[in-house]
Amino acid sequence: MGLDYRVRCCPDGLVTDRRRRIRVLDCTIRDGGICNDWQFSDDLVQRTFQALGQSGVDYMEIGYRTTDGLFDRAKVGPWRFCDEDDLRRVTRPGGRMKLSVMVDVGRVDPADIPPAADSVIDVIRIATYAHQMDDALRLLDHAQAQGYETFMNVMAVSTLEPLEVDAFLKRLAVSGVDNVALVDSFGALFPYHVRYLVRKYMNYLGESIRVGVHLHNNQQQAFANSIAAIDEGVDFVDATIHGMGRGAGNCPLELLLFYLDNPRYDVRPLLDIIDDFAEMRDELRFGYHLPYAITGYFNMHPRSGIDRMGGPDRYQCRDMYEKLARRLDQAAKAG
Amino acid sequence: MGLDYRVRCCPDGLVTDRRRRIRVLDCTIRDGGICNDWQFSDDLVQRTFQALGQSGVDYMEIGYRTTDGLFDRAKVGPWRFCDEDDLRRVTRPGGRMKLSVMVDVGRVDPADIPPAADSVIDVIRIATYAHQMDDALRLLDHAQAQGYETFMNVMAVSTLEPLEVDAFLKRLAVSGVDNVALVDSFGALFPYHVRYLVRKYMNYLGESIRVGVHLHNNQQQAFANSIAAIDEGVDFVDATIHGMGRGAGNCPLELLLFYLDNPRYDVRPLLDIIDDFAEMRDELRFGYHLPYAITGYFNMHPRSGIDRMGGPDRYQCRDMYEKLARRLDQAAKAG
Repeated sequence: MGLDYRVRCCPDGLVTDRRRRIRVLDCTIRDGGICNDWQFSDDLVQRTFQALGQSGVDYMEIGYRTTDGLFDRAKVGPWRFCDEDDLRRVTRPGGRMKLSVMVDVGRVDPADIPPAADSVIDVIRIATYAHQMDDALRLLDHAQAQGYETFMNVMAVSTLEPLEVDAFLKRLAVSGVDNVALVDSFGALFPYHVRYLVRKYMNYLGESIRVGVHLHNNQQQAFANSIAAIDEGVDFVDATIHGMGRGAGNCPLELLLFYLDNPRYDVRPLLDIIDDFAEMRDELRFGYHLPYAITGYFNMHPRSGIDRMGGPDRYQCRDMYEKLARRLDQAAKAG
Repeated sequence: MGLDYRVRCCPDGLVTDRRRRIRVLDCTIRDGGICNDWQFSDDLVQRTFQALGQSGVDYMEIGYRTTDGLFDRAKVGPWRFCDEDDLRRVTRPGGRMKLSVMVDVGRVDPADIPPAADSVIDVIRIATYAHQMDDALRLLDHAQAQGYETFMNVMAVSTLEPLEVDAFLKRLAVSGVDNVALVDSFGALFPYHVRYLVRKYMNYLGESIRVGVHLHNNQQQAFANSIAAIDEGVDFVDATIHGMGRGAGNCPLELLLFYLDNPRYDVRPLLDIIDDFAEMRDELRFGYHLPYAITGYFNMHPRSGIDRMGGPDRYQCRDMYEKLARRLDQAAKAG
């Protein structure tokens, strides 16, 4: 059932067939866990694993691998650490779907990453800022030596100068990394930004490194930016169930699978579990909210939006808007 | 403060200056009223009128003009009728912002549209389906003869064949109408659809008729589709405060004004009243919700989604998805 079979007013062939090459990474538990300190029940994570596998999703990023002691285990759920025992409790080996964990540069030791043969983890994804690239590449070498498929997320690209982007892409191009995501941490980008950047990423990273996108929804652009990236020819797209993720959240996985319109994927198993995440949205208030729109507009970290959403004046944002505008003006004047 | 001043990784000049010509129509009370039977307090409508005027918005569509007796006045608020006395109570004459009311073909008589000189209304916008075009054009002639600026919204374009679109555009091109909106009633369109259609609308309608967009957010594309339309050179965009509108709602006005980045508009007066609409969103559940995503995906009227949202199983939608898929398949087989 094709899009242009449904939307009749437009001729066939408007959609490029670049959709067909897309692979999908779900990061609901990892990125969504930022909203609830990874306090998901084993039952929900298990059902999520099963539904994602049945839907044909290619990668499930189930949480972070973190050095012990850096978070209070009484406060955060197990998916902030992803110990092997915890992972084995909620997953089943042998499916097509690969299991991924994220590691933050500075919050993980080489000793936390055992040989892939001893782990249920298939993929290590390294989250780094551009200025931490030396440490990120050391971590990458270790993960590769241990036998993992590797991803690299260079965060907050929207705050960098073009030459800074070129510089880290040149280093990644010769790093041996398997996959690199364009990361819009602040939800600041519009489709023309994304088109420009994914072209640059693909040009610099060459034929052997897959390029994808990890996008936030502060300005309701996460799915639209994914469509622009798909149109430009990226290899993978990140998404989360019902868009659950930090602040305004991410590209909703259900919309992405509708759009891909590929028999490789089946949205129906997801429809059986969205209920759980929709209820969490009511409680945790991820998704489109004015404070997140404002931080996205100003290309700033969502933390001031998250603070605002925690209080009773969450939608009275004129003072927040004016304060951030002044801060940005002062930064521009200071050069 | 320009977009590319904030998002540093992309060179200047990515955004075309087509944004500068955009005029903005707010239809919060008219389209949002579908969510709450137009039960807005006089105080809120008055504050909305003032804030929109201070923000530089060009048109406020405040409700429908409707023949008396077609709705139960005990059930719906005054903005379903927009009697002159009601309008005068909440508006102030003399500002730059024009006041618009919508009329539905079949729900209004010529007698309901007095001479413009006797009314506070500046603009009559006619809502019609393509198959009602004879009646719509008769209504248009009357509104023009009475001295109003006129808009025409041909609804549910996504369900028409290309030749049907061409046919009504040819009639509108010689109708004398001032403004025509591309209307995505079902939230079914993606940016490439919108680009194709607005090019067609602009080509058929010529130089003297302004073209704009009225878009719904079922698949989180209302704002993204607005951006695509702006990029193609349209003259006006519809939006609503906090995206309030039927079902999944509309393009959020605050995001649009951020994006336009034009000193003609000032988002700050809006920030003072969004709180009221955000609270209504919690209660009325407009915005992105799974049942609306499904009707948008299937290019169907949102009514089955609205029904589903009214019940306790609102996010358990596998049966709804499968039922609509079967209905669409049967319709396709029946030709």
